[in-house]
Amino acid sequence: MDIRAYWKKRHSEFERALDRALPPASAAPATLHKAMRYSLFAGGKRLRPILVLAAAETFGGKPDGAMPLACAVECIHTYSLIHDDLPCMDDDDLRRGKPTSHKVFGEGIAVLAGDALLTLAFELAAQVPGWKRHSTADVVKEIAHAAGSKALIAGQVIDLECEGKKITPRQLATIHQCKTAALITASLRLGAMSADATAAQMQAITRFGLALGLAFQVIDDILDITQTSEQLGKSAGKDVAAEKATYPAILGMEKAKKEAARLTALARESLLPLGKKAEILHAISDYMLAREN
Amino acid sequence: MDIRAYWKKRHSEFERALDRALPPASAAPATLHKAMRYSLFAGGKRLRPILVLAAAETFGGKPDGAMPLACAVECIHTYSLIHDDLPCMDDDDLRRGKPTSHKVFGEGIAVLAGDALLTLAFELAAQVPGWKRHSTADVVKEIAHAAGSKALIAGQVIDLECEGKKITPRQLATIHQCKTAALITASLRLGAMSADATAAQMQAITRFGLALGLAFQVIDDILDITQTSEQLGKSAGKDVAAEKATYPAILGMEKAKKEAARLTALARESLLPLGKKAEILHAISDYMLAREN
Repeated sequence: MDIRAYWKKRHSEFERALDRALPPASAAPATLHKAMRYSLFAGGKRLRPILVLAAAETFGGKPDGAMPLACAVECIHTYSLIHDDLPCMDDDDLRRGKPTSHKVFGEGIAVLAGDALLTLAFELAAQVPGWKRHSTADVVKEIAHAAGSKALIAGQVIDLECEGKKITPRQLATIHQCKTAALITASLRLGAMSADATAAQMQAITRFGLALGLAFQVIDDILDITQTSEQLGKSAGKDVAAEKATYPAILGMEKAKKEAARLTALARESLLPLGKKAEILHAISDYMLAREN
Repeated sequence: MDIRAYWKKRHSEFERALDRALPPASAAPATLHKAMRYSLFAGGKRLRPILVLAAAETFGGKPDGAMPLACAVECIHTYSLIHDDLPCMDDDDLRRGKPTSHKVFGEGIAVLAGDALLTLAFELAAQVPGWKRHSTADVVKEIAHAAGSKALIAGQVIDLECEGKKITPRQLATIHQCKTAALITASLRLGAMSADATAAQMQAITRFGLALGLAFQVIDDILDITQTSEQLGKSAGKDVAAEKATYPAILGMEKAKKEAARLTALARESLLPLGKKAEILHAISDYMLAREN
């Protein structure tokens, strides 16, 4: 299959849906809605929403039915970036090649824009009708767990606490599991839920998500070192400067690359029980894991 | 009825339920869960959760059925206080007589503890089974609207933007409507939903909530001026120092007191369609509006 054409199509459908899902920039209070839109439409790759849509298709669902969930996960992802970039967190000035939210709107509005996107994610999730095997409540719980104090937020806490400290590869895997793999896995699971996937199918997609999410993060760490800021669209070398725990920092570059390859293979293997159905997911994971930014 | 005894009973039931609803302070990451618990168990009055429980009882529901929603609204309220107190917002050092979250845990953890409580609120809301007239999705939407970019968060944005500026009584009413009345109204509506209230009952409780919420905030503004920090358990006179828009600042103290009385009367009037059923709500509003801190 032509993955670039597929990605482009889903990407543009998603952009339109996300635009409709957000209050207009002119809605009061305009500063807040502008800030929400500024970060949401800053040229992200839309990896997570496209995983939602692809997982829905994999199990015979229509992309339309999964669209509110695709919008919800992108709101969660964007909120976490806005808050992570704050001066009291990672203190980053550049994101996706543009000044970060607090640089443009000030810290107060950046905190509130993040809060508003997190809240909106649940409003959007509550719009789905529910299916035979999975209810609207299940969908809300899925997002709350992935974004919650034992996953996404836990990752940021551990990351903050580990800055400048020696950590083990195991601890690092926990950070990546929480900060990246949890939401990537949830994206796939949400898409599958919207197509009324069976328990066995949910299990396969969950294993795939964990491996894909970790592989994706290891590659992200590697690119932070090997690419320039221009190629990345964000400040390169920040991880090293902040003494962030990353795979290349802990294992060395060669072992980090081997780990990325191992996780990529594991991801592919997890799709085997799905047979032919998994074509799109295979293509997406190959595409994601060969990226250069 | 003995409102003090009623409040005390519901209060202690609520404290136990909230404790069970939260991850233990020892759960990893411990700093985060400690910070969540620190602010949640800082001796709040539990006004909003008790309104949830009282509204449920008013329409024949059991407090137990409404308890996850009572916990959810208190998580929302507490998250909003943690974020409002941040240096980039109202920059407050004292809350409920104790140092604010960022003073104890640092700004990064305070932001994340707020995020985690907001997320937890939706996880808790998704636990309710849904009722004949109101689904779990309705409950999630209700909370998302009240906490969202056009209500709770809008209020904080407008408040930030108005600091040091002249505003009209109408603009001030909008701030209070968003920052206070929306969540108080949602608390009552959520309790009513959990007791499967009819459309007419929902309408009455909504009108009551709006009037009660505004009255509560006007009285809060008045107390900020007339009470000491010790009596309030938070920094008194902060509104005046920050040139915050308040009713006494805009209308003068006498007119502010008249407005509080007018809104209180309006709240009582809104309960008339509910007849005898509304006894608890009458008692609670009298109790709330005669408070001294």
